[in-house]
Amino acid sequence: MINFIVPRQVHHDLVASAYRHRGYTADEAQAAARFSELTAWHGIKTHNAIKALHLDELFGSKAGGCVPGAKMEKLPSKYPAVQRWNANRKLGQAVGFEAMQAAMDLADQFGVGIVAVDNAFHYLWGGGYVIDAAKKGYIAYTCCTAALAEVVPFGGKFPTLGTNPHSWGFPTQDLIGFPICIDWATSTVAMGRVQQFIREGKQLPPGCGVDEHGNETSDPNKVKALLPFGQHKGYGLSLIDELIAAYTGGSLPTLRSRWGTGPKDEKHTPNFFFQCIRPDALDCGDFAQGRKQGENVKAVIADILSHGNEKAMLPGQLEANAAAQSQKHGGLIFTQAEIDALAHIAAEAGFAFDANGLKKVEI
Amino acid sequence: MINFIVPRQVHHDLVASAYRHRGYTADEAQAAARFSELTAWHGIKTHNAIKALHLDELFGSKAGGCVPGAKMEKLPSKYPAVQRWNANRKLGQAVGFEAMQAAMDLADQFGVGIVAVDNAFHYLWGGGYVIDAAKKGYIAYTCCTAALAEVVPFGGKFPTLGTNPHSWGFPTQDLIGFPICIDWATSTVAMGRVQQFIREGKQLPPGCGVDEHGNETSDPNKVKALLPFGQHKGYGLSLIDELIAAYTGGSLPTLRSRWGTGPKDEKHTPNFFFQCIRPDALDCGDFAQGRKQGENVKAVIADILSHGNEKAMLPGQLEANAAAQSQKHGGLIFTQAEIDALAHIAAEAGFAFDANGLKKVEI
Repeated sequence: MINFIVPRQVHHDLVASAYRHRGYTADEAQAAARFSELTAWHGIKTHNAIKALHLDELFGSKAGGCVPGAKMEKLPSKYPAVQRWNANRKLGQAVGFEAMQAAMDLADQFGVGIVAVDNAFHYLWGGGYVIDAAKKGYIAYTCCTAALAEVVPFGGKFPTLGTNPHSWGFPTQDLIGFPICIDWATSTVAMGRVQQFIREGKQLPPGCGVDEHGNETSDPNKVKALLPFGQHKGYGLSLIDELIAAYTGGSLPTLRSRWGTGPKDEKHTPNFFFQCIRPDALDCGDFAQGRKQGENVKAVIADILSHGNEKAMLPGQLEANAAAQSQKHGGLIFTQAEIDALAHIAAEAGFAFDANGLKKVEI
Repeated sequence: MINFIVPRQVHHDLVASAYRHRGYTADEAQAAARFSELTAWHGIKTHNAIKALHLDELFGSKAGGCVPGAKMEKLPSKYPAVQRWNANRKLGQAVGFEAMQAAMDLADQFGVGIVAVDNAFHYLWGGGYVIDAAKKGYIAYTCCTAALAEVVPFGGKFPTLGTNPHSWGFPTQDLIGFPICIDWATSTVAMGRVQQFIREGKQLPPGCGVDEHGNETSDPNKVKALLPFGQHKGYGLSLIDELIAAYTGGSLPTLRSRWGTGPKDEKHTPNFFFQCIRPDALDCGDFAQGRKQGENVKAVIADILSHGNEKAMLPGQLEANAAAQSQKHGGLIFTQAEIDALAHIAAEAGFAFDANGLKKVEI
């Protein structure tokens, strides 16, 4: 298939222009552009600039969920390794980068650092923040409450949970070439995937969704809500995001992102949670066969992927493969449909984007 | 079915005697008895005193994996919120209780606290430690590497991962009557469950196990290794335990608990990870409708279980129901077969256990 290579600087300027055009500050536009580059570089089609700007329309600056130029407040805390931030609906990517950096700084001092964020907006792709932190040497974790309650609790009928993702990153790049990144939503599939099954006229695999009566169905046309992956186990993982958000400041999941619903004094914002650990803080100094910590982690990974498991992949491998393709082709790889969407975004922002002059590659 | 009620003190003395008889110190025997009481009280049949002593035979004091009277070393650390302990193969329950307490103490000071444990022995049931910490007011988490590599990585053929559990506890007891406890292994089922399917002559559901060639099978007689739950997602969660252990000091998973295998200077011990967070450290002080933090968490839980989800259960509800039964009957509830096993343990330890004088209840 023919793909197009957008140079990083062009992509950066295009995305930043689009955000500036929507009223975001220069710093926010920079963060948004940097984050979109991270997604496109790693082949994350579901959360690239096109999706980011679409979400901004649906839930963000055009809907009240995100406030361009909002000032974030770092609240005082009596606990030095945990920070509490009120994002005041500032752009999610800007808050996410800054919060993960703060968690890294706390980890440098305390071994572990946490930043809990209230009144947040969508941060798009948790994997981006943990890959970034892992590349800087940290064991990183983030979770958040997803925009809408689309997932039915195990044993229930009605969606009252978000697709609430979890993302973990491990600084394994010097050992295996890339950071291990475990990153997924707690629903079996996303609603976008259900729509893809409709388009392709296919039946869903078991455990994906329920119909209007709350009964499981494999007909994607009948799906009204999603199911958690792994039955009670995925349900528990989704619940963790809701509970951490509830302790932080998040209100009822069924009201989330549904501005204008519910009683007065309600809140509709999601929440973020970031955590970093210094790997050397865990190092008990007693590794087999005189190994150092990194050598030991490498040996353990090699053991897991040996004994006939040579075809098994590590989480993060696909993102690393996509990053290698981006590196090889010297820019960000987009399909024709994506280039058309980017051209549309550029035109809206008055940005001169030479879509016809892009390098083409067969991938 | 007829069950028998063992008074807590009798159970405590019986279990402590058994551990003393095997050479454990009075403190270790106390911890083992306290932990077994916690499991039996919450209806955790798979990890009660009988299982604990059986594991001690298989992997513990009789096999070299656990050393009665071992001295634990708390290693110096430059990071004040993370502690590194060398358990020197001390009894898992004693180490687990002490490490979770240390994590709570660190959380009191820093907002979050972590204890990583090297050269550990089996700690039995992660849920016990997080329920205990949640009841004391903390958001608690623990994971560990399971004794044996029984689980095949997603896309692989051969078991190189433990059933590696994760356990989270939330201090919701004052809000809903019990702490929410999310606690499970990362395999779809345990090997014990496969054996149960064999006994019952039933086929396994999809995604449970593979045969000797690494191909999935629903015939429990052919199962040679387990599969992670939720495909790549459960695989990722299992990998987290292996990686954290590898950073701490754990060696190759395929050598774990297999004493006498592998080259010289190898290690065969599992690892523990404990973490506590103070809920008030996350409190950003801005809850909808003037709620306080606890009221907000309660409102969120109520929302999740409303709208037709009244039959959905919270994780930890089953354990809470079992605890209520124990409370109602004034002791620990055991079946006839379990009483027989306890009588056998008592006889071995020379403990006078009046199995015939126990109160009987129909449950």
